[in-house]
Amino acid sequence: MDIRPWTRLRGFHRGISAFAFTALALATSFARAQDPLQLWNDTAPKKAIITFVEKVTREGSPDFVPPNERIATFDNDGTLWAEQPMYFQMMFALDRVKALAPQHPEWKTKEPFASLLRGDLKTALAGGDHAIMEIVMATHSGITAEEFEKIVKDWIATAKHPKTGRYYNEMIYQPMAELLAYLRANGFKTFIVSGGGIEFMRPWVEKAYGIPPEQVVGSSIETKFEMRDGKPVLVRLPKIDFIDDKEGKPVGINSHIGRRPIAAFGNSDGDQQMLEWTMAGKGARFALLVHHDDAEREWAYDRKSNVGRLDKAWDEALVKGWTVVSMKDDWKTIFPK
Amino acid sequence: MDIRPWTRLRGFHRGISAFAFTALALATSFARAQDPLQLWNDTAPKKAIITFVEKVTREGSPDFVPPNERIATFDNDGTLWAEQPMYFQMMFALDRVKALAPQHPEWKTKEPFASLLRGDLKTALAGGDHAIMEIVMATHSGITAEEFEKIVKDWIATAKHPKTGRYYNEMIYQPMAELLAYLRANGFKTFIVSGGGIEFMRPWVEKAYGIPPEQVVGSSIETKFEMRDGKPVLVRLPKIDFIDDKEGKPVGINSHIGRRPIAAFGNSDGDQQMLEWTMAGKGARFALLVHHDDAEREWAYDRKSNVGRLDKAWDEALVKGWTVVSMKDDWKTIFPK
Repeated sequence: MDIRPWTRLRGFHRGISAFAFTALALATSFARAQDPLQLWNDTAPKKAIITFVEKVTREGSPDFVPPNERIATFDNDGTLWAEQPMYFQMMFALDRVKALAPQHPEWKTKEPFASLLRGDLKTALAGGDHAIMEIVMATHSGITAEEFEKIVKDWIATAKHPKTGRYYNEMIYQPMAELLAYLRANGFKTFIVSGGGIEFMRPWVEKAYGIPPEQVVGSSIETKFEMRDGKPVLVRLPKIDFIDDKEGKPVGINSHIGRRPIAAFGNSDGDQQMLEWTMAGKGARFALLVHHDDAEREWAYDRKSNVGRLDKAWDEALVKGWTVVSMKDDWKTIFPK
Repeated sequence: MDIRPWTRLRGFHRGISAFAFTALALATSFARAQDPLQLWNDTAPKKAIITFVEKVTREGSPDFVPPNERIATFDNDGTLWAEQPMYFQMMFALDRVKALAPQHPEWKTKEPFASLLRGDLKTALAGGDHAIMEIVMATHSGITAEEFEKIVKDWIATAKHPKTGRYYNEMIYQPMAELLAYLRANGFKTFIVSGGGIEFMRPWVEKAYGIPPEQVVGSSIETKFEMRDGKPVLVRLPKIDFIDDKEGKPVGINSHIGRRPIAAFGNSDGDQQMLEWTMAGKGARFALLVHHDDAEREWAYDRKSNVGRLDKAWDEALVKGWTVVSMKDDWKTIFPK
């Protein structure tokens, strides 16, 4: 990939501005305790979040939770950043398929690669989650963990979204970034728990969300320790290790965090079990779903969508009183200005 | 298990005293910066540790490492607590085998269970690491994650070591506990990376070492998300998911931490690859092996031991100049008074 100095510099500025944003949000939280979520309208979701945070952090309150147990988990695709017209990791995989195609002549006739190379995304994605994961894993293996990290960093610094023309990490929901900072300012430890690849997220989420690599849970392929010329490397194998989606999310949470979250944030049926697992614990709990209903500022989709379908989880939210955010009505802004 | 009030209370006091110890060590570190490791003799290992910590934390130093990258990983068995005459988790497994034997008549003739039930530990352990892992996994499954956590907590609060008569969490190496606190006081994030079961460690390591569950990496069995009477549970399956030992340690580190440690601490050949992986990174690095050479205050064993064998890793340490701690010569004390 051709990384010219100006793209590096641009990536650097974006990193800085994400950091500046977080610092600003933090400073704002402290300065104006009465309005820690300024990018949220004064509607029910904002009130529900603040009420929850205040009761679990007030010492002596029956709902008080000690800081080490203030675990909050966030889905990534569709919850922290956009996911249309397909998961951004698929955009990355498509670029990888193109780059690797000369080394894989068999892809010309092998689905879903053949369709991807023809530019027919619809057919390529028709195989559903498993086909998606197959493409992702096949294009993410055969190299070392270190090499893969560099490829992801290069991609995030240069690739742009086909519709908005923005860099992908400029398609982060600003009210959610503000919420992450607000929770951390109140002693929460924030985790990503995503169906996306764990090694695809780690290279950029620390700058983007203030979430370090060790607080990222995701899908993974197997890796193998090897000595190459006397130097140890971790080689990424073309074999799925774990899919961190649906029933996998509580399993991933248990494996990586080892503690049940007290708050969980998602946007699709892939998050339903994470929210159920979170809400089934003792004491004060909070569950939130982001509803994509803003066709003007973002995309509008829910029950019928192939990507980020919100159907069963929405029904459960309505029955159980989980908070549902309307992006249209509850957020003042969506993407960075 | 019969948990009488006095054992609960005793467990509570031990928890408090571990906390008090940590607080004391921290306060001491700040008050007497010239001697942050008071339980260590003024020999080479202590000097090497302090030199390393000072150079990576001094801003402007060419070896400076920002706090978010100050990752330190510690083996558990034989590095943070004792492991003789066998891994303490095996003691736990033995108690579980006895408790579960009535439900498993087939164990009477099936190795390694038959030998364990006859009290013939030597034969039971003759199968090596894999046999050990099999016993551990078989006795650790068939229940929910929550039930298992309670069983471990009960055991740690009541079981005693056959030789010393101490509770197992009173067999923690005090100089290492002091070292953990010293590193954290210097902005390090401390992790356990152990061949032991991740769910066996998590219920007690936070009190014992100040290391929260999300900073524990270990071997695991598979778990499955299930709904039972409308309540979500995680069921522990009798199937090994991951063995976090030898070549597995760098894999476990990559999976759970996603960042290469800058310092790693172990005591056996099971830690060799973790130390190699740590030392192969750029910039200042630190690797340490604890050598068990104190038959009077603890145990003396190395190249020929079945448990915690230190042979190849020792040779590599000698060649590469990794720090090797003599428990006899370098530590003022070993267990709590």
